[in-house]
Amino acid sequence: MTVPHLTTALTGPLRELESRILAAQPHIEHWFRSQWHNHAVPFYGSVDLRNSGFKLAPVDMNLFPGGHNNLNPDFLPLAVQAAQSAVDRVCPEARNILVIPENHTRNSFYLQNVAALVHIFEQAGLKVRLGSLNPEITAPTQLTAANGAVITLEPLERRGNRLVLADGFSPCIVLLNNDLSGGIPDILKNLEQNLLPPLHGGWAVRRKSNHFAAYDKVADDFSSLISIDPWLINPYYSTATGLDFHTRQGEDELAAKVESVLARTRAKYREYGIDHEPYVIVKADAGTYGMGVMSVKTPEEVIGLNRKARNKMSVVKEGLEVSEVIVQEGVYTFESINEAVAEPVVYMMDRYVIGGFYRVHTGRGVDENLNAPGMHFVPLSFEKPCLPDRHAGPDAPPNRFYAYGVISRLALLAASLELEATDPDA
Amino acid sequence: MTVPHLTTALTGPLRELESRILAAQPHIEHWFRSQWHNHAVPFYGSVDLRNSGFKLAPVDMNLFPGGHNNLNPDFLPLAVQAAQSAVDRVCPEARNILVIPENHTRNSFYLQNVAALVHIFEQAGLKVRLGSLNPEITAPTQLTAANGAVITLEPLERRGNRLVLADGFSPCIVLLNNDLSGGIPDILKNLEQNLLPPLHGGWAVRRKSNHFAAYDKVADDFSSLISIDPWLINPYYSTATGLDFHTRQGEDELAAKVESVLARTRAKYREYGIDHEPYVIVKADAGTYGMGVMSVKTPEEVIGLNRKARNKMSVVKEGLEVSEVIVQEGVYTFESINEAVAEPVVYMMDRYVIGGFYRVHTGRGVDENLNAPGMHFVPLSFEKPCLPDRHAGPDAPPNRFYAYGVISRLALLAASLELEATDPDA
Repeated sequence: MTVPHLTTALTGPLRELESRILAAQPHIEHWFRSQWHNHAVPFYGSVDLRNSGFKLAPVDMNLFPGGHNNLNPDFLPLAVQAAQSAVDRVCPEARNILVIPENHTRNSFYLQNVAALVHIFEQAGLKVRLGSLNPEITAPTQLTAANGAVITLEPLERRGNRLVLADGFSPCIVLLNNDLSGGIPDILKNLEQNLLPPLHGGWAVRRKSNHFAAYDKVADDFSSLISIDPWLINPYYSTATGLDFHTRQGEDELAAKVESVLARTRAKYREYGIDHEPYVIVKADAGTYGMGVMSVKTPEEVIGLNRKARNKMSVVKEGLEVSEVIVQEGVYTFESINEAVAEPVVYMMDRYVIGGFYRVHTGRGVDENLNAPGMHFVPLSFEKPCLPDRHAGPDAPPNRFYAYGVISRLALLAASLELEATDPDA
Repeated sequence: MTVPHLTTALTGPLRELESRILAAQPHIEHWFRSQWHNHAVPFYGSVDLRNSGFKLAPVDMNLFPGGHNNLNPDFLPLAVQAAQSAVDRVCPEARNILVIPENHTRNSFYLQNVAALVHIFEQAGLKVRLGSLNPEITAPTQLTAANGAVITLEPLERRGNRLVLADGFSPCIVLLNNDLSGGIPDILKNLEQNLLPPLHGGWAVRRKSNHFAAYDKVADDFSSLISIDPWLINPYYSTATGLDFHTRQGEDELAAKVESVLARTRAKYREYGIDHEPYVIVKADAGTYGMGVMSVKTPEEVIGLNRKARNKMSVVKEGLEVSEVIVQEGVYTFESINEAVAEPVVYMMDRYVIGGFYRVHTGRGVDENLNAPGMHFVPLSFEKPCLPDRHAGPDAPPNRFYAYGVISRLALLAASLELEATDPDA
């Protein structure tokens, strides 16, 4: 596989951006090293990118990444090395790790992700066991993933300030792969173990707007470093609160926010001579899995939503009601593979990029969200690691992947700043 | 490529060893993590292993590894990640690195190694320049490696307590890829920069016997951890000093040492029912590049050496006179590829295994040293990283490579203990 084809003629600005990233590689890596000395790197994360040919930007940053099964198995050693580094940072004396997966035990692709995570930690030399928050798991339960891998979920128990399994397994690292959309269970509160990501990283508390506020700062700093317009790597956004999609409360305010983001985007499109229609993505400020997401091109589209659209917008995962949304500049994806639109997803562990894949959709448009519930995307793992080839052109595959890795690490850094800023104990 | 064929029927003990290593993987990795918290990991290193089917042991540990060009390019990302970790450990604010290569500028294969090192550090985001100790390098000089890669050597200068290049390039990390066989140049003394490996790691000062004394301790500890006989991973050795090969001074003492190591080895061969003739390797205690090395099966062989053998033994690299030798139990290599004997060499950077290759010789015996001057070996890079596959048998390729990686890291740990013990400032 090579890099997907960019189906837009507007690749000039991107090539310019990629060239600058490539030329500044030593500065960039030095800058990241110093950032990670001032900010705690998240244990792991994944970033959804969009590449419009004129803009390359993160549109979502996941602190509880699923999809490790979609990474190129050739890069497994990178993940193992990164896992060793991450564990060493958190709890050097660790022999064991307890991973808490999502509760949906019937998604056999998600189970594949869990099996892949288990494999990474086993390769790193840890004993890994899976503790489940799912009340249906009352005894060790074997589940089979889509690829035939078998994992064993065990019921979590609380003993004093520690999470344990029935036989007393009680490691110093507890890794959440459950985004806590349903709220923070009492069993996870006030643990003396290292619980990562921290509870305020879960969607019960986390807000996309906090992440993108932190990303604004990171993108501005980075853009100064390599002398670019921050807009090239950062989508405009705004927020609207106090919404009730059922009673249409807050609709006008939302429409105004949509218009404001569209207007700012339109101005940038004019500045760069981009002949496309701006759009925005309206999505729940708390939440994930692509629920509660709309793509709109005019403010009128959010006024008087029909029942179906209202229902779609009003509830995200685990029945969470949506009253706050983020209105984010839409970034076209002009990457395509065999005429299907594709968006890159980059995975990181500790401070390292460990791989990525393209989400490829045949049934979606260039201005639509590709991470939607029930949608089946085809994962296409990156064939090359995200290391630059300075002797090749800026859009040679390794260099495009390097640029992806850099922008994704900016989002990871933003997540670090976001978690600092929102830490209830700080 | 798969793992070379073992041409001995005596693979029972090795399979047993590999099985134990595999079964104990979480304990082993935990043990290494804790060791690296108590001991400073060398910046990089390579280890020559010998695999006799009944024994798997390091026979040499190089603190100034050449041969990075022989590693599988598919694993480059592992080296880059390890380099980032190594640099971060030594000098997190580093933007630049100064590498000091060997002086022999006409070995175009060695130049390939230098080019490979430069590439690794560039990929890690550092500016890399090469400072030469060679007095013939009086201006920036471009040299072309065997594969066509071009490197630029620049003359080293001293300004106060810093090493610099002519334009003032003066990074906080100076990495030696020159083993200082010819002595420690004044220009390298009392630097305020981080000079790695430290000067007492150079062959002007370093002694193999110190390394193997440290390895004795490491091998004993590790053998307790996984309940094996340390002999399975550790060759017997002894030392002889005050030798003069030209005047035959010390010959009898040397013969006695040879007999003592042979006798101990013979006893072990009997214990394990090994039907081979023990041999020892006599080699300079200080020195490298396989000079000053003899393979002998009886003590008589070191008495009354002819002129050719005396000359071979008496001088190692850069004319260093040999008066101290190490008498090391010979470990047969029963690995072969197309009937040529092969010995594995494993490369590490920071605490990570970054790859390895087989030294394959068609013209050498199973009891001979394969790293000899002027010998052309065929490098055959490992096809797989050194990660275990616990679902496969102990001698499946990934598992053999994992065992190689473990034993090599033991030698790396021994190097750390050795450098601590021999530190003149300690």
